[in-house]
Amino acid sequence: MRNLSENTLPLLLAIAICLLLLARNLSGGSPVPTAQTPQPDAKTQAASERPPRGKMVGIPPQTHLYPMPMSIVGAHVNGRPNFLAIAYVGAGCYDPPMLVIGINKKHYTTEGILANKTFSVNIPSQDMLGITDYVGMVSGRDVDKPKLFEVFYGKLETAPLIRDAALAMECEVLEVLDLGGTNYTVVGKVVATWVDENVLTRGVPDLSKIDPILFSMFENRYWRLGAPAGKAWHDGADYARRQGLPEPKAQGH
Amino acid sequence: MRNLSENTLPLLLAIAICLLLLARNLSGGSPVPTAQTPQPDAKTQAASERPPRGKMVGIPPQTHLYPMPMSIVGAHVNGRPNFLAIAYVGAGCYDPPMLVIGINKKHYTTEGILANKTFSVNIPSQDMLGITDYVGMVSGRDVDKPKLFEVFYGKLETAPLIRDAALAMECEVLEVLDLGGTNYTVVGKVVATWVDENVLTRGVPDLSKIDPILFSMFENRYWRLGAPAGKAWHDGADYARRQGLPEPKAQGH
Repeated sequence: MRNLSENTLPLLLAIAICLLLLARNLSGGSPVPTAQTPQPDAKTQAASERPPRGKMVGIPPQTHLYPMPMSIVGAHVNGRPNFLAIAYVGAGCYDPPMLVIGINKKHYTTEGILANKTFSVNIPSQDMLGITDYVGMVSGRDVDKPKLFEVFYGKLETAPLIRDAALAMECEVLEVLDLGGTNYTVVGKVVATWVDENVLTRGVPDLSKIDPILFSMFENRYWRLGAPAGKAWHDGADYARRQGLPEPKAQGH
Repeated sequence: MRNLSENTLPLLLAIAICLLLLARNLSGGSPVPTAQTPQPDAKTQAASERPPRGKMVGIPPQTHLYPMPMSIVGAHVNGRPNFLAIAYVGAGCYDPPMLVIGINKKHYTTEGILANKTFSVNIPSQDMLGITDYVGMVSGRDVDKPKLFEVFYGKLETAPLIRDAALAMECEVLEVLDLGGTNYTVVGKVVATWVDENVLTRGVPDLSKIDPILFSMFENRYWRLGAPAGKAWHDGADYARRQGLPEPKAQGH
């Protein structure tokens, strides 16, 4: 073995460097950036990017709407509340407010909607993903679904609302369309809305606090919300200026 | 100065530890997690989180559906293509596939939909946010909108499709509902679908490649997609096992 004293200086230097590295790690200072360290900008947060355009190709016609909002629809069936996960939901009218759902004719909940002409649309948060998926997988004929939720009522006696939802709307059926397919297309007028006061920002529902569940059909996948991307009835005016297009006269609906 | 040789063993140990730490840092291996190191899990990527539950409070009933998908609806008006941004869109039926839009009765595009009984639903990507907002702010009565897009046609002669969209659907009108409000609720059967081949993954539209525009009403804000959050018709079974609930018999629709 070589005499240690010959290496005293390089050794002390190595120790100093090592202690510095050690201190950095223990103090929680910024580590050396690596491929494993995601940067917190909007792009990496979104983890979503359109590749360069390719050819437009035909695929079989299906309900390829992206993304769909996950909701839990509630109704009374045989005198008891029942719930069902529904992504086939959209807005049908601004004033009065109407929602449209596409509900399978065979579902247990459907019987209740047809019988009572009322239903609820509840918006679940990400922390309800498991239960939301579950109420879309089992039938109220087999499982006692009202036990799964704390249920409350507002204006309508047969539109059960979910206490844990971020937002819950009570609807009166205006129209049930049977256009010959697997689903009824049901239009409901929103007659009352309930919201967790903690998902409001200055009195308006805040999507980042709702932390909604997004659904992509045929991939059979749920997604989270990403970063804010722009202002509606606003960014189009910037676009017009950049492109030299006629500017919008008024901003709003 | 004390004789170094007395400390030979502890020194060698310290050097070994330090070299190990050094190697970790230089090799780009996982650094020690700190507050400054965003973890690549869904939560930090999404930048969205539900606060602790508060009281459920009533707010005026409106179309509080979260999130809404942004689409650009196309139609022929007076023999020319026209386009309009629409977030009031949902799926109405699985088979045959139907989409439902809520379109303001006064809009220019509406005339064309009523006249030809056809329309298109185009899914724009985030890089089309400016133009999407713009076609929601100006009327085809004032601005020559077909000039804004490269337009193509598929099966229907009066359902203009947008070449730049991630996905474009041709619809035949099955029903126009006038339930006394500001909007017609229009049900269309999807008769043909076109998709940018580059947004497909194993033949299925991939939401992270579509990079869709999400809309939150009343906040008037656009959002990006976040991270994948779960598997549909699957995570509910895990939930059932964890909760000791009756397990779903079959997985699927």
